[in-house]
Amino acid sequence: MDKKELKEKFSVKEMDEIKVFTENEEFTGVLLPSSNENSLALKMKSGYNIGIKTENVRKIEKTGEQKKETEEAETKEEKKEVRKIEGLPLILILSTGGTIASRVDYRTGAVKPAIEQEKLITNIPELMETANIESKSVYEMLSENMRFEDYKKIAGEIEKAVKEKKELKGIIVGHGTDTMHYTSAALSFMLENLNVPVILVGSQRSSDRGSSDAAMNLICATEFIAKTDFVGIAICMHENPADDNCVILSGTKSRKMHSSRRDSFKPVNDIAIARINFESRKITYLKEDYPRKKEQGKELVLRNEIEEKTALIKIYPNFTAKQLEFYEKENFKGIVLEGTGLGHAPIGNETEENKKIFEAIRKLSEKSVVVMASQAFFGRIDMNVYSTGKDLLNAGVISAEDMTPETAFIKLAWLLGNFSQEETRKLIGKNLRGEITARSDIRGFEIE
Amino acid sequence: MDKKELKEKFSVKEMDEIKVFTENEEFTGVLLPSSNENSLALKMKSGYNIGIKTENVRKIEKTGEQKKETEEAETKEEKKEVRKIEGLPLILILSTGGTIASRVDYRTGAVKPAIEQEKLITNIPELMETANIESKSVYEMLSENMRFEDYKKIAGEIEKAVKEKKELKGIIVGHGTDTMHYTSAALSFMLENLNVPVILVGSQRSSDRGSSDAAMNLICATEFIAKTDFVGIAICMHENPADDNCVILSGTKSRKMHSSRRDSFKPVNDIAIARINFESRKITYLKEDYPRKKEQGKELVLRNEIEEKTALIKIYPNFTAKQLEFYEKENFKGIVLEGTGLGHAPIGNETEENKKIFEAIRKLSEKSVVVMASQAFFGRIDMNVYSTGKDLLNAGVISAEDMTPETAFIKLAWLLGNFSQEETRKLIGKNLRGEITARSDIRGFEIE
Repeated sequence: MDKKELKEKFSVKEMDEIKVFTENEEFTGVLLPSSNENSLALKMKSGYNIGIKTENVRKIEKTGEQKKETEEAETKEEKKEVRKIEGLPLILILSTGGTIASRVDYRTGAVKPAIEQEKLITNIPELMETANIESKSVYEMLSENMRFEDYKKIAGEIEKAVKEKKELKGIIVGHGTDTMHYTSAALSFMLENLNVPVILVGSQRSSDRGSSDAAMNLICATEFIAKTDFVGIAICMHENPADDNCVILSGTKSRKMHSSRRDSFKPVNDIAIARINFESRKITYLKEDYPRKKEQGKELVLRNEIEEKTALIKIYPNFTAKQLEFYEKENFKGIVLEGTGLGHAPIGNETEENKKIFEAIRKLSEKSVVVMASQAFFGRIDMNVYSTGKDLLNAGVISAEDMTPETAFIKLAWLLGNFSQEETRKLIGKNLRGEITARSDIRGFEIE
Repeated sequence: MDKKELKEKFSVKEMDEIKVFTENEEFTGVLLPSSNENSLALKMKSGYNIGIKTENVRKIEKTGEQKKETEEAETKEEKKEVRKIEGLPLILILSTGGTIASRVDYRTGAVKPAIEQEKLITNIPELMETANIESKSVYEMLSENMRFEDYKKIAGEIEKAVKEKKELKGIIVGHGTDTMHYTSAALSFMLENLNVPVILVGSQRSSDRGSSDAAMNLICATEFIAKTDFVGIAICMHENPADDNCVILSGTKSRKMHSSRRDSFKPVNDIAIARINFESRKITYLKEDYPRKKEQGKELVLRNEIEEKTALIKIYPNFTAKQLEFYEKENFKGIVLEGTGLGHAPIGNETEENKKIFEAIRKLSEKSVVVMASQAFFGRIDMNVYSTGKDLLNAGVISAEDMTPETAFIKLAWLLGNFSQEETRKLIGKNLRGEITARSDIRGFEIE
């Protein structure tokens, strides 16, 4: 029996609340529209979709009418009062949107940024046991839509909170996961002498498991901020697909490595700063040399200029010179090339197009700052090993060392926004916010 | 004492063969030019560079004159005769260059593609114990310089060998590692009904350990080809940084994930096909459903056209519409967008630039084929979850499913070279060479 036949037999329509019985299980949820005739798409209360093969369906019961007034019902719900308890640390949650603050659109099954931040917090009573929580919605957007101006706004909110609230223990930034590592890098550079922990927290609700990871990630981040002496920008997400631990990852040395898993954020050329066990709330520090709170910290400096004319360009076989010449014509000030291997681009072997690419890179390097990162992500750029790398160095290309291409891109844009071109060339390869790991004394290969 | 002082004290010059004594060890090699005054750069016989801090140097002895005639000496060396033994399988090694066939330039310490393939083979006697080896040099280039025309040439050589040598057990393609996964994808698509194993083998000599991995990777690949019933394109490299195992990885579902480690190639949304233990030569199959040799195989079809006007574009925060409009103006026929998360681009939130980006994608999709892959690499594209994805689907963007951006790019170029635009749109999301993993019945989230 296919979906159409099942719907007729049990008199249910799309958007009805139904209970589906298979041989061994039953599932309750809203029947979603879907194009697959051999499967029922059910939106469950947890917010997750489940697919049930029609061949496994034994019975369907209608439990409620078509779900239409979801939005209305939600907004009518009373706001719970947020109480403050003396002795608990003060944590500010800045919400920017993303899945962590999302609600499912019942008509389409798609996720939209819409939940009010206050509601999210009052729905997680554990937060209030650990800290006095204040919250503020900066905006509501999916992180894939963010632009440089949005980084300025978040950095400004952080600066304001740190300067105004002397008792502030730390800040959580609720954020979409798509570009969270770009934002964490931008905030790392924009805020100098940050003397509180600022933890970006996302959620991969669209995940491979049955419940949302938003609550656990928020609880772990709160727990960490309340107890830690770490200061600076970091990310708090699941350590693995299970719900046992969260990890605190560097804001400049992490990236999203999986499109849907809750443990999608991984350290790159780095290890996690700390692990928080969800059940015991125990914090284990994995890194010895993380930045620590200073009793007499220097004053927070906000440098939030960022050069719009900065590009991140992935290099690949059959790349053409014209693609680079475009950036010269458009007067870009900074270019990060995401090259291959140790930091290469197709400039050799005497072919006409490769010669033109070399010439285009050389010209770009004259006018603007050209930086080389690797699409391999792990490992370090070393342009001293192969002839291709040496030629690129001679053309003026600067190594991103072991920065991710994303961090190199944000750093370059930030440097160009706040410093001269000459200073930018000097600072790009220098470690400013933990983004570059110290390399051993000599360039080249080491023996173990 | 710095380098200059040491050189004077012990009367040694750059390019001299020297013996360096530290408190507990001694190192023999050629003193390389280097800019670091606090370290001696030594090129050792193994081909590796080592850095010795000048402060640790107790004594230096000069053991030989300046090394200048290396090249001459090498070419004078006699070629060993390659003998054939009855009963052993015939394996062809096609060399294209890269580190696996490289030699170190003593003047600069850089690696250049220069060793003759025959010499490489006769230097590894183990190969001759397992198979009768024929070898041919297709060209000598670093893989970062490869262009589409080079794929045609390699594919042509494979076709020729398979059709001419009826007794051929399989082929090894010696290849640079920078773009090996792009080439393996190209060969996978260009050669249909391939009924022998064709294994790409590279070397990460510029690695974190003391000896080259070229020999072990070649021996493992030879062993695998001699004994396996696997057919098709695959990659053979180290499984981990130790020298214990090699793995056979799918030609369409792998990528270089580390700039220097010998285990840099990893399966993406896939597992390895087989593991070869170097010591015991034992082959363990990890995948059950790999393509197997057919007794009556269909005839090999070579489809080696490939559309030059295909681009791979990484998307990032603050991306601009103009960067996409360039590809429309230049009449590109295919575009792979390397988007964020589940397959997103900055098209929402009602900002002017994001609106323009959406419009540019919509226009590109009308004229050409636009495919969405993820810069997260692991996981699958799903444009049905968030409003951003749905809007992109409506604009005509096609999901790359769980293909890597690199494989999606090569596949799109190959489809456009050999099929109509309409056929390309249909075939891009269909599994042709193991590049797409079957997804479960329903789009969306599954519970475990």
